[in-house]
Amino acid sequence: MASESGKLWGGRFVGAVDPIMEKFNASIAYDRHLWEVDVQGSKAYSRGLEKAGLLTKAEMDRILHGLDKVAEEWAQGTFKLNSNDEDIHTANERRLKELIGETAGKLHTGRSRNDQVVTDLRLWMRQTCSTLSGLLWELIRTMVDRAEAERDVLFPGYTHLQRAQPIRWSHWILSGAIAGNPLSVDRELLRAELNFGAITLNSMDATSERDFVAEFLFWASLCMTHLSRMAEDLILYCTKEFSFVQLSDAYSTGSSLMPQKKNPDSLELIRSKAGRVFGRCAGLLMTLKGLPSTYNKDLQEDKEAVFEVSDTMSAVLQVATGVISTLQIHRENMGQALSPDMLATDLAYYLVRKGMPFRQAHEASGKAVFMAETKGVALNELSLQELQTISPLFSGDVSCVWDYGHSVEQYGALGGTARSSVDWQIRQVRALLQTQQA
Amino acid sequence: MASESGKLWGGRFVGAVDPIMEKFNASIAYDRHLWEVDVQGSKAYSRGLEKAGLLTKAEMDRILHGLDKVAEEWAQGTFKLNSNDEDIHTANERRLKELIGETAGKLHTGRSRNDQVVTDLRLWMRQTCSTLSGLLWELIRTMVDRAEAERDVLFPGYTHLQRAQPIRWSHWILSGAIAGNPLSVDRELLRAELNFGAITLNSMDATSERDFVAEFLFWASLCMTHLSRMAEDLILYCTKEFSFVQLSDAYSTGSSLMPQKKNPDSLELIRSKAGRVFGRCAGLLMTLKGLPSTYNKDLQEDKEAVFEVSDTMSAVLQVATGVISTLQIHRENMGQALSPDMLATDLAYYLVRKGMPFRQAHEASGKAVFMAETKGVALNELSLQELQTISPLFSGDVSCVWDYGHSVEQYGALGGTARSSVDWQIRQVRALLQTQQA
Amino acid sequence: MASESGKLWGGRFVGAVDPIMEKFNASIAYDRHLWEVDVQGSKAYSRGLEKAGLLTKAEMDRILHGLDKVAEEWAQGTFKLNSNDEDIHTANERRLKELIGETAGKLHTGRSRNDQVVTDLRLWMRQTCSTLSGLLWELIRTMVDRAEAERDVLFPGYTHLQRAQPIRWSHWILSGAIAGNPLSVDRELLRAELNFGAITLNSMDATSERDFVAEFLFWASLCMTHLSRMAEDLILYCTKEFSFVQLSDAYSTGSSLMPQKKNPDSLELIRSKAGRVFGRCAGLLMTLKGLPSTYNKDLQEDKEAVFEVSDTMSAVLQVATGVISTLQIHRENMGQALSPDMLATDLAYYLVRKGMPFRQAHEASGKAVFMAETKGVALNELSLQELQTISPLFSGDVSCVWDYGHSVEQYGALGGTARSSVDWQIRQVRALLQTQQA
Amino acid sequence: MASESGKLWGGRFVGAVDPIMEKFNASIAYDRHLWEVDVQGSKAYSRGLEKAGLLTKAEMDRILHGLDKVAEEWAQGTFKLNSNDEDIHTANERRLKELIGETAGKLHTGRSRNDQVVTDLRLWMRQTCSTLSGLLWELIRTMVDRAEAERDVLFPGYTHLQRAQPIRWSHWILSGAIAGNPLSVDRELLRAELNFGAITLNSMDATSERDFVAEFLFWASLCMTHLSRMAEDLILYCTKEFSFVQLSDAYSTGSSLMPQKKNPDSLELIRSKAGRVFGRCAGLLMTLKGLPSTYNKDLQEDKEAVFEVSDTMSAVLQVATGVISTLQIHRENMGQALSPDMLATDLAYYLVRKGMPFRQAHEASGKAVFMAETKGVALNELSLQELQTISPLFSGDVSCVWDYGHSVEQYGALGGTARSSVDWQIRQVRALLQTQQA
Repeated sequence: MASESGKLWGGRFVGAVDPIMEKFNASIAYDRHLWEVDVQGSKAYSRGLEKAGLLTKAEMDRILHGLDKVAEEWAQGTFKLNSNDEDIHTANERRLKELIGETAGKLHTGRSRNDQVVTDLRLWMRQTCSTLSGLLWELIRTMVDRAEAERDVLFPGYTHLQRAQPIRWSHWILSGAIAGNPLSVDRELLRAELNFGAITLNSMDATSERDFVAEFLFWASLCMTHLSRMAEDLILYCTKEFSFVQLSDAYSTGSSLMPQKKNPDSLELIRSKAGRVFGRCAGLLMTLKGLPSTYNKDLQEDKEAVFEVSDTMSAVLQVATGVISTLQIHRENMGQALSPDMLATDLAYYLVRKGMPFRQAHEASGKAVFMAETKGVALNELSLQELQTISPLFSGDVSCVWDYGHSVEQYGALGGTARSSVDWQIRQVRALLQTQQA
Repeated sequence: MASESGKLWGGRFVGAVDPIMEKFNASIAYDRHLWEVDVQGSKAYSRGLEKAGLLTKAEMDRILHGLDKVAEEWAQGTFKLNSNDEDIHTANERRLKELIGETAGKLHTGRSRNDQVVTDLRLWMRQTCSTLSGLLWELIRTMVDRAEAERDVLFPGYTHLQRAQPIRWSHWILSGAIAGNPLSVDRELLRAELNFGAITLNSMDATSERDFVAEFLFWASLCMTHLSRMAEDLILYCTKEFSFVQLSDAYSTGSSLMPQKKNPDSLELIRSKAGRVFGRCAGLLMTLKGLPSTYNKDLQEDKEAVFEVSDTMSAVLQVATGVISTLQIHRENMGQALSPDMLATDLAYYLVRKGMPFRQAHEASGKAVFMAETKGVALNELSLQELQTISPLFSGDVSCVWDYGHSVEQYGALGGTARSSVDWQIRQVRALLQTQQA
Repeated sequence: MASESGKLWGGRFVGAVDPIMEKFNASIAYDRHLWEVDVQGSKAYSRGLEKAGLLTKAEMDRILHGLDKVAEEWAQGTFKLNSNDEDIHTANERRLKELIGETAGKLHTGRSRNDQVVTDLRLWMRQTCSTLSGLLWELIRTMVDRAEAERDVLFPGYTHLQRAQPIRWSHWILSGAIAGNPLSVDRELLRAELNFGAITLNSMDATSERDFVAEFLFWASLCMTHLSRMAEDLILYCTKEFSFVQLSDAYSTGSSLMPQKKNPDSLELIRSKAGRVFGRCAGLLMTLKGLPSTYNKDLQEDKEAVFEVSDTMSAVLQVATGVISTLQIHRENMGQALSPDMLATDLAYYLVRKGMPFRQAHEASGKAVFMAETKGVALNELSLQELQTISPLFSGDVSCVWDYGHSVEQYGALGGTARSSVDWQIRQVRALLQTQQA
Repeated sequence: MASESGKLWGGRFVGAVDPIMEKFNASIAYDRHLWEVDVQGSKAYSRGLEKAGLLTKAEMDRILHGLDKVAEEWAQGTFKLNSNDEDIHTANERRLKELIGETAGKLHTGRSRNDQVVTDLRLWMRQTCSTLSGLLWELIRTMVDRAEAERDVLFPGYTHLQRAQPIRWSHWILSGAIAGNPLSVDRELLRAELNFGAITLNSMDATSERDFVAEFLFWASLCMTHLSRMAEDLILYCTKEFSFVQLSDAYSTGSSLMPQKKNPDSLELIRSKAGRVFGRCAGLLMTLKGLPSTYNKDLQEDKEAVFEVSDTMSAVLQVATGVISTLQIHRENMGQALSPDMLATDLAYYLVRKGMPFRQAHEASGKAVFMAETKGVALNELSLQELQTISPLFSGDVSCVWDYGHSVEQYGALGGTARSSVDWQIRQVRALLQTQQA
């Protein structure tokens, strides 16, 4: 190799290798996560070498046995890293050589470290996706259980954070569970990609392409975005002003200063993690942007991102499941938050059913809202005569409008907030859960 | 509504509606893109109303006819926007009312503008995904055509931008084409999501969930990341120093200052758009983060992002296709860039085939590289005697190693750079192309 | 130049220049914003050429006069773009040549288009920063005016969205105004950078460095993040549940479906724009990442980002000013939201003043809160005897604790919520405002 | 507090506190970095309490002494964390109480943990900014030293990665050093903000505002963007094709597969870290977006971001300094990369000096380039007669144009590539360096 004349101008470092560079370059601090899949991959590869005639049966057996010993040391916490072990691959191979001698050197025939890196990461992600998927289904199961048990509780639906129409509490829960659901599609995508039944079509592309990492990080970002929105709703519902739900003490903390406080820390942390996870996704895409094809060391950034995001998702999904399963709802507050003006749309529909075009009915109902506001009464306290000044189509049966239970039952279309529709949603999600268990 | 006492302190604005707010709030400047799908959606909805008994057959016919007229005006560029037309939905309904009178007011029965917004956007994206998909396949077709025609051209493969091993030019082309390929899976995902055969499970989720937008923007970001890497490679290959390819004048520009320059602007623009497209994806996710459930006006940000990204992708894919189809390659420069040291791995494999473990063979080959460097000769100019000082396993047949054509032919495993393997890759991609045309 | 053999394989395009590439390459669609600064820059440059002896006095005069004519045409809307006008610089020079003949060709001596691009953008940003700064000060002025007028209104301070301690409404307003304040520092930084008194130190760096763009986009992102948080607070305060404030109709919209709704669209749009603006910042940084030094066409992405962000900031700042100046506050609701348990910290301080270490006092106060909860009474309804079972330090003067006005007056340290402290904050911000007007 | 009925539906967790939540909530794993500044802050605070009459002199002395003991334990590695130590603040206070008894409880009088968190982080960042600034100046010093020593080396300047004009190697180096320079302004900004001479104006804003974190992360992102561009240039210059520079072995690594390879891993890692650092900045801004005012637990995300980015910057700056100080340049290759067509602009200037308008001269020079290409000769091999067919202004003195040294000396304007200008740049940067040492 080129001779090395040492540093020319200034600089802290004198010697053959800059120790900061060595540390900067090494990935062993975090890629030791991969020990198990690295051994697994090497065992498969040595079988391949034997089939190709590049290892004898005896050599293969020696290697397989040595790799099992390496794995045992990792599992028992007795594996000793050397200061020269740059990454998990060199560490395992170095140890293998100590255990079985020169035959170990044959294991690397025809594969580059870049191949190993990407194979190990794919294997690891197959495992982690399976774990995360299990945790996600556990969260969904908890949500659908609650949705079923509490489907008779009504409370206000909001748009723009303004009270809109009465809805079932279960309808809100399922809106989260269902948002979770499409994610499983991505997992299937990943699983399909990772089962290695399919062969990567091009060797250049295989070592440098990190779509499976980017897609995992994006799945996590989108999943966290959903969970941040669910957390935001629950944080609002926990305020004194809303008082719809109460977090279990197990998921709250007190204040060091204010004795009366009980803070929804668990939900705030869930909300905040959306930023962290997305930041990892953004960082990886920026690292990939404009990179020349094939392997460049820049790609080493993928692993820490994946490990951190996997840990974050695992904690978030478990805490979210705990929060949902221990949350108490305040039925009476939910009920009291319903008010007759939330039935203004129903009033318009009443007129539509009497034959008025919707746009006119909407206007008429708006006039009724304004009249009630002006008179300082609730919308349902307007007399029939008063309503008839707005439209002669109003008659005695208008009183049926002022019933919240009746109101929600109108929304029986699939996806609506009627009891039958909510039951249908529960059945759909349960069916999905069963597919998972099969 | 609440009475309005006007501004209390300072501020520019006096009056009932702040004109800047009106403009800030209005989306008509960009959502006019949606005119066609808005009419399409309303036509379908009026048929639904008739089926539900909320419109008579005659009313439905009047509405359908009116909507056709509205569409005709848009198509002919004669549709006149009013200053009160806040968005495409109000504009179309206002015009419908002018054309057919009060019946128009019935069209809105039972659907909110939020429903319309999300339905229209889904319909529009179904169209645009189909268009972009066509352009993507056109790019892939162009690449595979070139790959087939030029599969006998060898040039250096690089890792870390250092010359690594000889590869086929077609192998490089296909690494791009194949990177393009998985994207079609996402398109299928989107298409499946958009065909509306499936029903959204929950009405709250349906209006506020923007996964289909986020996934589209992420697909575009990942696709652009791939194209930015392909562009980077080609920009390098266009430099005087590499001189492997020459861009067509149609995709280059000159310098206003330096008469001899020919700049690869097209490729630089492709590379740069990765940032823009990703920025839109990042922006949308940040907008979604922590948003309360159901509709909030924040969601209005989705449309401009989608329109801009769709336009950008459309231009990028067409320019990339043009660049690839008109690019000239300099075969002689590609060949001259191959050098014997790129066969050092082959030299190691030679020893492996003679029975040496790979790690030792790698070391022996490294010694040969160093010996050649020291003597100032090319690696293939070392004499047999010199090689035998490194290992007695070297014999006369080592001369076969120094053949680039022979070198690439070793990589016959699926995905490799041997002619048979490249042919297989071409067939795989062609098969995919055929599935698309069916 | 190199001969052009046309496209080789497939592709849509046949001919000398791909029209899609031409459009892709051209920036005239958006850089016409720069007409005024382009003329301004060229006028300065022609004076420099005359001083350097490269133009005669007569030539310079002819050019200056021609440039004035060009500017006049832009100002009057009579400037006609040709289809060959790739960007604003070529358009203006082309027109200048039509007006004054060959002398126009001398204007470009010794400067490249890249110089022009970056100079024009810096000039334009100097203008736009000044405009935005004015709008920002207008918002701050509005806030401080309100803060002064309404400083006697108390309402709950929140942490974790849980009611914490009573604070002045003005204290909240000023927390936003003050967050706005540091931003002016960045503006000063930019202004200093843009006044061109200082010379860029290195010509390579001057054309390719876009720190001034990145810093502007980041300033805007951070400013929008602050405004998104202020908007979030106000959206919450607008809910039925909080009912602390009421938005002017000028900044609200109704629902197409629900006649009783009044939605805070203005605030939701402000909140959402944080995502869009940050997306532009993220996109630019990704575009810059890994770019070779000096000019690359990728840098063309800077302008649209800057123009869009400038427009967005301008609208947001004006709408925010309008919202704040017309907002109505509901004093009675604010007062009713205060509750005795928010004085639990004051109760602890009472014990501290009697000599108890704070940690013990905090615990004692917590016990009182628990006792009140258990007995189902408000904290201030516990009798002296009951309190004395918790600590003998409680005596008759504990009754002074139960006064919200007294509570806030304790926080007289600079930055606190006491009247004197809030007055001091108002004076500080007013002093800053005056520096701006000087 | 509210009674806790345990989990209602499903879920993994049974008991008073979910252990995963406890871990999720705790920050001690990373905020132990803050031990020193936490003690420093508490010492200052106890002095403040004494001055305010809330501690006696004796109590203060006991606390100060106890805090010194706590610090000593941390410094010596003997501090034992309890499983209940949620964060560094509770850990230190718990230990203080063990050491000095109940007096420790008085230290927390009148400050909340949120105050402590933000004060500690500001103190820590003051230290870390100072360290990073020192490393940045060391890098700049190394660059300017090289620039001075090697200012006679010429090589091609590139735009669009196409050879443009000859420049000095030192001009390139300084373009990086100067890009580094403006960053120091930000550091000054931060330092000014952190010196606590100024008082935060508003207590609500003080605990929830994280501008100083966001600005630090953005400074780091922008700095890394610059370094990624410098790394990109050097990676290109290291390729076989350019061969302008050679990395020291201390900053390169070999290939596990290809014995002849020497990869610029250090530069690739520097380039890649731009993504990671920006990802942290993006993540924090997303976390902040739409957060209600004052403290929310989401803000806990700030610390890990700051710690990781600080570590990354520290390693990157040191490795970059090492790379630059040990880099070898290949003068002969740099010289050979210069070619006569890079003097085409000089040829145009020659005509300008003879009185031709620049636009015509540019065209004439372009014709000469084309003529030389057509004839297959270098631009400087065209005979005078041939040049005169293009313009009669060419005469014998045109031969002076064909001198690279003469060419660069024309650019004597400040910031140019003439020796005098480069010397001036060196003096400017040295002057800056001296201001730092003062």
